[in-house]
Amino acid sequence: VNKVKELDGIFKAKSIAVVGASTNPEKTGHIIMKNIIDGGFKGQIYPINPKGSEILGWGCYSSLIDVPIDKIDLVIIVVPAKFVAGVLEDAAKKQATCAVIISGGFREAGNDDLEASVVETAKKYGIRFIGPNCQGVTYTPNNLCAAWPLMKAKGNMAIISQSGTVGAAFAGWAEEDNLGLSSFIGLGNKSDIDEIDLIKYFSLDNSTSVIGIYLEGVDDGQTFMEVSRNVVCKKPIVVIRPGRTKKGSIAAQSHTKSIAGDYKIFDAACKQVGILKADTVYELYDFSKTLSLCKVPKGSRCLIITSSGGSGILATDIAERNGVDILNLKEETKTALSDILPPYCIIGNPLDLTGDTNAERYYEVVKKLKNVDYIDILLLIFGDPIPNTADFAKRMKNEISHEIVACYIGGGDIQDKEVLNLHETGIPVFPTPERAMRAISALIKYKNFLQKYNLKLEVKK
Amino acid sequence: VNKVKELDGIFKAKSIAVVGASTNPEKTGHIIMKNIIDGGFKGQIYPINPKGSEILGWGCYSSLIDVPIDKIDLVIIVVPAKFVAGVLEDAAKKQATCAVIISGGFREAGNDDLEASVVETAKKYGIRFIGPNCQGVTYTPNNLCAAWPLMKAKGNMAIISQSGTVGAAFAGWAEEDNLGLSSFIGLGNKSDIDEIDLIKYFSLDNSTSVIGIYLEGVDDGQTFMEVSRNVVCKKPIVVIRPGRTKKGSIAAQSHTKSIAGDYKIFDAACKQVGILKADTVYELYDFSKTLSLCKVPKGSRCLIITSSGGSGILATDIAERNGVDILNLKEETKTALSDILPPYCIIGNPLDLTGDTNAERYYEVVKKLKNVDYIDILLLIFGDPIPNTADFAKRMKNEISHEIVACYIGGGDIQDKEVLNLHETGIPVFPTPERAMRAISALIKYKNFLQKYNLKLEVKK
Repeated sequence: VNKVKELDGIFKAKSIAVVGASTNPEKTGHIIMKNIIDGGFKGQIYPINPKGSEILGWGCYSSLIDVPIDKIDLVIIVVPAKFVAGVLEDAAKKQATCAVIISGGFREAGNDDLEASVVETAKKYGIRFIGPNCQGVTYTPNNLCAAWPLMKAKGNMAIISQSGTVGAAFAGWAEEDNLGLSSFIGLGNKSDIDEIDLIKYFSLDNSTSVIGIYLEGVDDGQTFMEVSRNVVCKKPIVVIRPGRTKKGSIAAQSHTKSIAGDYKIFDAACKQVGILKADTVYELYDFSKTLSLCKVPKGSRCLIITSSGGSGILATDIAERNGVDILNLKEETKTALSDILPPYCIIGNPLDLTGDTNAERYYEVVKKLKNVDYIDILLLIFGDPIPNTADFAKRMKNEISHEIVACYIGGGDIQDKEVLNLHETGIPVFPTPERAMRAISALIKYKNFLQKYNLKLEVKK
Repeated sequence: VNKVKELDGIFKAKSIAVVGASTNPEKTGHIIMKNIIDGGFKGQIYPINPKGSEILGWGCYSSLIDVPIDKIDLVIIVVPAKFVAGVLEDAAKKQATCAVIISGGFREAGNDDLEASVVETAKKYGIRFIGPNCQGVTYTPNNLCAAWPLMKAKGNMAIISQSGTVGAAFAGWAEEDNLGLSSFIGLGNKSDIDEIDLIKYFSLDNSTSVIGIYLEGVDDGQTFMEVSRNVVCKKPIVVIRPGRTKKGSIAAQSHTKSIAGDYKIFDAACKQVGILKADTVYELYDFSKTLSLCKVPKGSRCLIITSSGGSGILATDIAERNGVDILNLKEETKTALSDILPPYCIIGNPLDLTGDTNAERYYEVVKKLKNVDYIDILLLIFGDPIPNTADFAKRMKNEISHEIVACYIGGGDIQDKEVLNLHETGIPVFPTPERAMRAISALIKYKNFLQKYNLKLEVKK
């Protein structure tokens, strides 16, 4: 736990130095400064550059040593590789306990010596660090964005990524969806802080309810699995690990010098400890999003309510192949529904409200299902532009206990607006029936794991 | 061929009547009128409604009979089911040879009699029709949008769909991508014109270079396959057919009364006649888009050029599983590339230009590959915001003969802009490495089919 506390120097930092800050808008040292400022960081910022006098309104210092305070919490490093160890020496003099080394040019470029000397120096002074060769750190509860792209939308998903781009894509989708993140960590070469440290940290972080991870290699598989096993009882972990094919594995080794593992063993271990495996970057995001918004359902029984017959069939196919039970409506339920629906609706599962439906018809149907105890999850598919879906969905959420996942497709401008509104009510929305149903299947896989070990967990909403 | 020519009454119509046009903006009869007008239709429009005097600026008539011309080319019908046969009688008096019956309430609602009487009346007067119970027809070469949503962006993909929503989603994505459509057809109950008629029509249509189809059931499987076999030699056909699982098939039967077929036989037949099968609605669109923009490559050998190592690995995994050959670079090529690249780039396949690359570096690399004859397809992955990719891609297209597909991911606002620019240069772009590589695999499947039968085809660009 002490080792976990050490990372507060990163996540709860009140003062930050950016070594290698720059006035040139194209340089990483500028982008990082700008994002820290634009991210709304409330503490002190000290740009360090021997050439500058002021950067983006903050007074610039020639070196860390010149900063006129005794203690700097966090040092962000963007200078060339060969200077990094020296910067850590200075950081130690300023009592810094944490650093983020964005600079590349280490092991990944064949400079193992440089990396070893950085590791040694950090260890000598008790400095914990992320990187090197990484895309930085964002932690929205502290309004800290020492990374790119700029991420400031607050949410409760944390993304830990060995690929900066995959992490940035995840963050971008979360921002577009108006859901935001708690944290983004570019792992880089992870020569000190690794996924295991971060899983532990986020397991105790109240702002994080789900942990998404892109991982090319795991150095200590056994500890990774042991730690994960404990954490998934508190909050779900979603992992994507590429490099499964022969050539993919060669590529992974070239990229981050990751050791190709046996994927069958890795998959089996994930299943056993309750880690959710994603097959694509969309799934990494979709599963994390669903698990961050929905409670764990009691069972696997799903009713599809749709305005688009075709989309309902597409969703059904995916359900059948992925362990989601497309339940049969009982006669009493059918009768109750036929009382309130026009005769041309198809009362089955999918329940096809047909193309002329409005949002209220979904609401009337869901209200009728209030006391139907053999349904666990509702998939609402809104096909074509249907206004006010979020208004009625909000009322549904207040009146029923079933979990709700939605798909909105073919709805043009109205869709764009409604998706954001639906997210605000806490319902995850997906742009295709396939993505929505795969997300439901992840929710059910997680439920199955918890039930197997008799764990009772409600994911924080 | 005569039967094909008959459909010119729909696609080349110079005068249109909308029976059931409405002044109420919420009614389908209004939306259709508005979309015909907003779509830029250049011919005469005759709204028919006993109550109106003018609708959206066009003089309204009580019935088709009152329209003061002798011949109306196309009659769009939006009145309740029980009036449709009567409207067809009037249409015959106005020498109409084609109709689009948008109205529902026929076979799909249990009213088989009504549908039979419509079919009989149409046959009696030699009127060909689309529908009933459909989402209309769009044909952009004639600026005709008698459907919803409004589609006016001109492109060369035709989408034929038994699900209005899936068709609308396809059209929406094409519009967002700035690629547009040649045509959208909502098939509905297809009690006259069906997918076979339309495949024949579009095979001869110079504005269409690829045909996408969403199909729940095929009434005449043998003819469908025979016709498709002939057409795929001229232009590719992409099909999605849901209802593959037991419950999915039950849902398909409820939706459009489609007869569940044997999917194994259907899949085998598709493979044999060269129809490309899509597994998801994204793939239906992605495959169509790629085949509409790219030429058929000579071989299956792909080089991935990326700024994001992780995305390159993800793409490699998909390639290996889907028949795309991730080629090995020859030593001479490696040497040539190392001459122009910074030492930290990883010269392999994927070729990792690393995170600091700009668009010009991609161009310099591709220029070096100009005379490398063991590469058929380039996948360019742009990870994070990289400006001016389209400018350099345009130069690449002029200088090399390899096919180019792109992925743009994690690039924020710059990505949004560049994707549109890249589409303008004729390069298909996808938001994830997985979607991009699956699209390449479809291109290669099509090539394999053509090569197997020694067909030489270049898809029109």
